[in-house]
Amino acid sequence: MDAITRIVGSDHVKRSPADLEAAGRATVPEPRLPAAVVYPGTAEDVSAVVRVAGEHRIALWACSKGKNWGYGSATAVSGNTVILHLERLDRIIEVNEELAYAVVEPGVTYRQLKRYLQDHHPTLWCDCTDGPPDGSIIGNALDRGVGVTHYSDHFGSLCGLDVVLANGERVRTGGGPIDCKTWHTHKWGVGPYLEGMFSQSNYGVVVKAGVWLMPRPEAFCSFQFDLREESDLPSLVDTVRRLMLDGTLQAASHIVNDIVALAILTQYPAPLLDRYSRLPDTFVDEMRERYGVYAWSFGGGIQGTPAVVRVVKRTLKRRLAPLGRLVFLDDRIVGVARAVTRLAQVPMMRGPIEWMVRRFAGKSLEMLAVAPHAYSVLQGTPSDFFVRHAYFKSRIPKPEVADPDRDNCGLIWFAPIAPMTGRDIRAILEMCRPLFERYRFDFYAALLTQNARSMIVLMAIFFLKEDAEQVARASELYEALSRATSEAGYQPYRISVTGMSKLADMAPDFSALTRCIKAALDPDHVLAPGKYGI
Amino acid sequence: MDAITRIVGSDHVKRSPADLEAAGRATVPEPRLPAAVVYPGTAEDVSAVVRVAGEHRIALWACSKGKNWGYGSATAVSGNTVILHLERLDRIIEVNEELAYAVVEPGVTYRQLKRYLQDHHPTLWCDCTDGPPDGSIIGNALDRGVGVTHYSDHFGSLCGLDVVLANGERVRTGGGPIDCKTWHTHKWGVGPYLEGMFSQSNYGVVVKAGVWLMPRPEAFCSFQFDLREESDLPSLVDTVRRLMLDGTLQAASHIVNDIVALAILTQYPAPLLDRYSRLPDTFVDEMRERYGVYAWSFGGGIQGTPAVVRVVKRTLKRRLAPLGRLVFLDDRIVGVARAVTRLAQVPMMRGPIEWMVRRFAGKSLEMLAVAPHAYSVLQGTPSDFFVRHAYFKSRIPKPEVADPDRDNCGLIWFAPIAPMTGRDIRAILEMCRPLFERYRFDFYAALLTQNARSMIVLMAIFFLKEDAEQVARASELYEALSRATSEAGYQPYRISVTGMSKLADMAPDFSALTRCIKAALDPDHVLAPGKYGI
Repeated sequence: MDAITRIVGSDHVKRSPADLEAAGRATVPEPRLPAAVVYPGTAEDVSAVVRVAGEHRIALWACSKGKNWGYGSATAVSGNTVILHLERLDRIIEVNEELAYAVVEPGVTYRQLKRYLQDHHPTLWCDCTDGPPDGSIIGNALDRGVGVTHYSDHFGSLCGLDVVLANGERVRTGGGPIDCKTWHTHKWGVGPYLEGMFSQSNYGVVVKAGVWLMPRPEAFCSFQFDLREESDLPSLVDTVRRLMLDGTLQAASHIVNDIVALAILTQYPAPLLDRYSRLPDTFVDEMRERYGVYAWSFGGGIQGTPAVVRVVKRTLKRRLAPLGRLVFLDDRIVGVARAVTRLAQVPMMRGPIEWMVRRFAGKSLEMLAVAPHAYSVLQGTPSDFFVRHAYFKSRIPKPEVADPDRDNCGLIWFAPIAPMTGRDIRAILEMCRPLFERYRFDFYAALLTQNARSMIVLMAIFFLKEDAEQVARASELYEALSRATSEAGYQPYRISVTGMSKLADMAPDFSALTRCIKAALDPDHVLAPGKYGI
Repeated sequence: MDAITRIVGSDHVKRSPADLEAAGRATVPEPRLPAAVVYPGTAEDVSAVVRVAGEHRIALWACSKGKNWGYGSATAVSGNTVILHLERLDRIIEVNEELAYAVVEPGVTYRQLKRYLQDHHPTLWCDCTDGPPDGSIIGNALDRGVGVTHYSDHFGSLCGLDVVLANGERVRTGGGPIDCKTWHTHKWGVGPYLEGMFSQSNYGVVVKAGVWLMPRPEAFCSFQFDLREESDLPSLVDTVRRLMLDGTLQAASHIVNDIVALAILTQYPAPLLDRYSRLPDTFVDEMRERYGVYAWSFGGGIQGTPAVVRVVKRTLKRRLAPLGRLVFLDDRIVGVARAVTRLAQVPMMRGPIEWMVRRFAGKSLEMLAVAPHAYSVLQGTPSDFFVRHAYFKSRIPKPEVADPDRDNCGLIWFAPIAPMTGRDIRAILEMCRPLFERYRFDFYAALLTQNARSMIVLMAIFFLKEDAEQVARASELYEALSRATSEAGYQPYRISVTGMSKLADMAPDFSALTRCIKAALDPDHVLAPGKYGI
């Protein structure tokens, strides 16, 4: 640690019990206290630290910003690891307007890049998630997170990596030559395409990456659709697949259930917190009625030339109308929603406005207030709004800027991926919903399109962190969900540090290959031992 | 070899001098005679052969169909290697109509899959190249070849591989579980994405792969554009980039120069063959005039709903009209072109028809005859038509079905990739054209969109195989082109077996990583030693 401190400077090493306690916090069960947190300032520092760690067989767990909430935050698979925190590597190295890409370091966040683009390159949009605005672009992409626009496949939009290997050597992916002009435009390079090796793995520390951006479209609108009959969900899923395969829907879209909507709109009423770990059905029905929430809703963005946007709207109307209620939002309507929401804050106006909104838009005031946030996220402008739903089961009121680690929120994401067919989605839901019931947790389910053929079934387990029994039960539910889905042939698209050890058993042949590569690149297991089962 | 013969059967091993001579033929210089050609019948055979080869340190060079014309055909980097020919693995294992993918073995060809789809799943289209219809779908995709539709990035459309490693073990990519339902729908799987490792490399033999297909669009048309001023090429390239980035053009498109068109339309006149290795400019001008060929033409397909196709056509008109002459082809027009072409075969009709076609379509009869072939390839229906241009400099008239290896045609592809900007494309052309002049070869250049940000500059060196001086000069030109482009920072998108040894020097850091992985997976260099510099 002395050698490491000499590299990064003593200001950039944290070892006090309070610091370690803070760094070991996560929304998932079982905190894993690190041995230290080290903040290198440059890629060269990272190389040097990795070399020293190798000499002394110190395990390093690289994290970009540590906002991997619900999957383990900044924490490693096991305790007593040194966290290699990359937040000081926060430079936006290049933005190429003509070719629409940025080159960034791992500490660069969605919020930071969006602001930078707004200030310097307003003709370019980035993608973001509806998660933490201060999350790392590279961190999310390497964990293969998904966003909300045409560029929602974050790993798919990475192009050209600069990586520190376990021996401290740097490697540029893509196969050269030196100063290769297509490093950030041609994903596959020449020779084997090796960038994929550095996602969901522990083969290296990415210290720089190209990220594709999208030119600001001439026209944009978003849509919001409420499914009339819960039983039509499989039809909706099949419709979304067809709309994606035929190119009508090109951006990612999300289908969310009632608990997702309620977690966004509200919180557990304090009196219920200690009585229930799962809201009673009658109460959910009441809340749904009160907020105007459907069993399933569906939304996304549409962009292109004005003519293309018109055509897509017409197609969506034709294809979705039989199944429910479809509305389109544009700048004008979102402006109105914003104004009405503000006006309703005047106490004597609230009543009449609430009545009017419900009468003419069929929505609650609270739902109306969501619209501008959804609209901006769908354009790649991150928002603090949605991530606050991590406080659904918290005693603390939702804060302006969420920090569920600090505020001790209990949340594990469980996220299998399925072929995008109504049959498969129904099978997973029918498998998982009863488990949530049996283990007495609210059934939160969001269906995220990963591509035109695959859909992530993102489920959240919200639990009271201070209630040991509930924490244990949440872990049991997680186990039960993992077992059931995996036995039925569904793999996780991404996984929490608490679930990684099971991956190796799932596919012994694949696992043997990942271990063989690990042994060649990092025989002493310096980098993130156990990450993704490797 | 006895052990290998016991595995595959003596009918499936070729060792006679005549067979080896035939198998060692390639359009590129320097034939590399193999030691034997082995044709396993199943994936299990492949495993067994690889195991035996490992025990006896025999080098194997896997090839799928051996139609890698211009890049080395079936031949290995070095002679005296055993060719592991996979053409007997020719099963179409599954077609999933709902999720639009097929699972095929490496011996399955574009022609075979297209016919199978037409017969059994007419609602699905595959992509193809404008190269050999009997080329392997998997072989081309693993070499990262490109096609002509929305699914033109062939490696990008591969999903879910079954691979035999150098130790004979089988591995399914994607990370499980067993019978994982998203194996062929979710490209990244869980854990590191390792499929890229098996493209442009020698880490394994792919014996099965998922290939994404596209649903037959409601509407389709193609466009053909002639650039008025040669000097506007950079503007055209910038326009194509913008049209791709904003989503107007979604299929691949090709910009081709006059020599490409002439090679497709005609052949070297016999009397010139022995006098010139490069057509005199005056002669080229004459031919251009005669056939109605422009310095640069541009074409591609448009598909979607009828409304989308209309919108895209309008946008293309607006954006391209200032630069030249744009025509759209649909089923009706292509039908007329076909009928007129047929009619012109009646001798007394030819004259008047030729006059009419030139008067009203501004094209030669020969150009008109090309249209139906281009139109069908853009819909994923492979054609024998275009690949015949390998006979541009042959004494043999273009045959119905091309086999340039058998017919001793001389052809090397040289294919750097550049950021898709007018500046970069101009730089490469201005660098390479004088080299073609200096080494006295015709300057064939086709610009293929690889993605919205990158363009392949595909150049062909046509040479007379029977003329040793010309062969040597072709190799020298190839060297000179490689050196010049690489020094300027452009990498090849794909490379011929004759150029692979240079790759390692180009990017020492990347090369060290590829070698480290090779040492771990295949320490005895059983699989394709030297492939892509590894």
